Amino acid sequence: RADGARLWATILETAAFGGTPAGGINRLTLSAEDGRVRDWFREACEAAGLTVSVDALGTQYALRPGRDMSRKPVAFGSHLDTQPTGGKFDGVLGVLAGLEVMRSLNDAGIETDAPLMVVNWTNEEGSRFAPAMMASAAYAGEFTTDEILAKRDAAGITVAEALDAIGYRGAEAVGARAIGAFVELHIEQGPILEAEGKTIGVVEGGQGIMWFDGLITGFESHAGTTPMPRRRDALLALSEFALAAERIALAHAPSAVATIGEAQILAPSRNVVPGRVAFTVDVRDPRSSALDAMEASLREAATEIAERRRLEIALTQIWRKEPVPFDPAIVAAVDQAAESLGHATRRIISGAGHDACNLAAKVPTAMIFVPCKDGVSHNESESATPGDCAAGADVLLQTVLRLANA
Amino acid sequence: RADGARLWATILETAAFGGTPAGGINRLTLSAEDGRVRDWFREACEAAGLTVSVDALGTQYALRPGRDMSRKPVAFGSHLDTQPTGGKFDGVLGVLAGLEVMRSLNDAGIETDAPLMVVNWTNEEGSRFAPAMMASAAYAGEFTTDEILAKRDAAGITVAEALDAIGYRGAEAVGARAIGAFVELHIEQGPILEAEGKTIGVVEGGQGIMWFDGLITGFESHAGTTPMPRRRDALLALSEFALAAERIALAHAPSAVATIGEAQILAPSRNVVPGRVAFTVDVRDPRSSALDAMEASLREAATEIAERRRLEIALTQIWRKEPVPFDPAIVAAVDQAAESLGHATRRIISGAGHDACNLAAKVPTAMIFVPCKDGVSHNESESATPGDCAAGADVLLQTVLRLANA
Ligand SMILES: NC(=O)NCCC(=O)O
Ligand SMILES: NC(=O)NCCC(=O)O
Repeated sequence: RADGARLWATILETAAFGGTPAGGINRLTLSAEDGRVRDWFREACEAAGLTVSVDALGTQYALRPGRDMSRKPVAFGSHLDTQPTGGKFDGVLGVLAGLEVMRSLNDAGIETDAPLMVVNWTNEEGSRFAPAMMASAAYAGEFTTDEILAKRDAAGITVAEALDAIGYRGAEAVGARAIGAFVELHIEQGPILEAEGKTIGVVEGGQGIMWFDGLITGFESHAGTTPMPRRRDALLALSEFALAAERIALAHAPSAVATIGEAQILAPSRNVVPGRVAFTVDVRDPRSSALDAMEASLREAATEIAERRRLEIALTQIWRKEPVPFDPAIVAAVDQAAESLGHATRRIISGAGHDACNLAAKVPTAMIFVPCKDGVSHNESESATPGDCAAGADVLLQTVLRLANA
Repeated sequence: RADGARLWATILETAAFGGTPAGGINRLTLSAEDGRVRDWFREACEAAGLTVSVDALGTQYALRPGRDMSRKPVAFGSHLDTQPTGGKFDGVLGVLAGLEVMRSLNDAGIETDAPLMVVNWTNEEGSRFAPAMMASAAYAGEFTTDEILAKRDAAGITVAEALDAIGYRGAEAVGARAIGAFVELHIEQGPILEAEGKTIGVVEGGQGIMWFDGLITGFESHAGTTPMPRRRDALLALSEFALAAERIALAHAPSAVATIGEAQILAPSRNVVPGRVAFTVDVRDPRSSALDAMEASLREAATEIAERRRLEIALTQIWRKEPVPFDPAIVAAVDQAAESLGHATRRIISGAGHDACNLAAKVPTAMIFVPCKDGVSHNESESATPGDCAAGADVLLQTVLRLANA
């Protein structure tokens, strides 16, 4: 069993790096705060006797030797970056529970056959740099390291520059480090476990995700003198498009979701009819066919609005992540570990993207979910109980032991 | 007659202060560029023998003595600040035509009975600091000087600080300087004169304006895991409100307009359902009763949307400017001046707010409009012909002579 109280203390301790007055965390990837929590994590791992290395995209790997060093390590972990309005658990739980697994094994004097490794993946959130989960995607070979290093944030800073700024551009080639199996513990970020009174979600896979960049080009004009019918108002076009996206997601209910998370009037002014609006779209469904259908509907809506309002709507897909099934054997190991501990479980599909979804393409992978309050995440009020966090860490520990000693 | 070629040359010369690659001007009030064009204007006025003073809100007054110094000056002018996507004529034409009137009278050796004064009012546009036309409103006694000095821009800088930063917080008390009559030449900023082939608009008054600040408070949540029906999406609420505002304006067609010119998601992220959106509303109509009706409809729409979407919509009126009738005698003087020059004229109501609309509360006032291309303003492509600008300057000169020698 893991030490739930110690795990909880580390969650509270690291929440200070980027902590917000509302009790959340604002720790965008590769920010100064991210640099500080990485330093903390490296020191904590080294104090636990682990050997820490960093790859060219900043991902941290902390290794605990096994009896059989010819075996690939059983890896687990998640991410320490957060959303601008992030909570204390999203990602953090998986990394710190991984550290707790190492500490508990040390305390109990337990050796494993395969080595163990806890990982902190760079930029899981995708808020500062798109796409999300980019370091694990590069690890799995979906992007080259150079492609990722060249991505820019809204201020024009590249991933390479941001890594250098906090001293986390490591020497190790991305993907070079062998992983035998990967297990990620995470809060569910949705309402299902809580509603059904289950402690552990045995995650069978992740849904598909599409991200788009949008740009509406209308025409700036005077708010007081331009008759309503003559306007080419980019914000009204966005408004119609946002409501169309909501209707399209609802038409694929209950599984589909669509979100305009960013929208910015360029050169805004109270008395200027908005001429240009840049925006983003996030669309998800567990079915690849539903993604196709929703993309077609979104493009149709954009065309219809653009024609009627005499303006241009450009919609560029910048990322598509297919739905991902996890490895049945690893899923079964999670299930057995949870059963052996007597937890109420449920099979579940992840609504959020996770580094595990990328790892799955290269390594046998599964995930463990624990409930969070009201299913709320990406919000400063995100909350999970010490008991559920400890239960998740226990299941992680037992799963890892099974895999490493099998 | 004014020297149209010289006027045109000064329009092009000053367009360099804040000039944009697209041929417009981005010269927000009290910016460094505004400071530079003010310096240019002061020097040009002094070179024309005028005495320039600055009041506590930065407004520049350039006086030409008359034969009878006991008479209050006949004043004319407009503003040199622009929108972020402003053109070369909005405001600029009225100030530089005023300078041209002074230069032409000098060249012709003409003295007037009453003194003449050209004025450059601070912050007409209202883009950086709300409300628009704030210096002329303070001149007319609608606000105290201290109220205006304390207004803040989006970066939190006060008008007082911005004035000090460019050295334009003058010694003269606002409203202290006497004005006997005020005439403002401006581009129409709307499509009517051009459509009807008229050169001169004889402006009878300005329509009413209401400005609101809005804040929608929903709930940030995860874009991938929050089911559509559970969301409290502030951007979708704004979208419905923006479309409601459009419908409400159209219901008061053809005179009414409504515009959401600014809208900002707070802490935006691609994979976060927007929790808070701040926005502005600009509503106008020549009828005070229509303003009342539209405000009521907007508040009803906000309440309905907020209830249905389970969020809060706060709508704060930060400015209301009643419809303004101009002085019949000054309007008649403009009409006679235009007639005497043989120009095709039309009576017209201003869709835009102007400093003249504030002056009208204190001083006999009227305005002269000239056409602009396609009625476009608050856009970098704003355009007026040298011929129409010269015609406007001629009518201003003849109106001013009539008033000053009457
Ligand atoms: N787990 C998580 O919130 N990941 C962020 C990527 C996404 O799903 O949008
Ligand atoms: N003339 C002009 O564009 N004034 C700005 C104030 C307004 O009407 O919005």
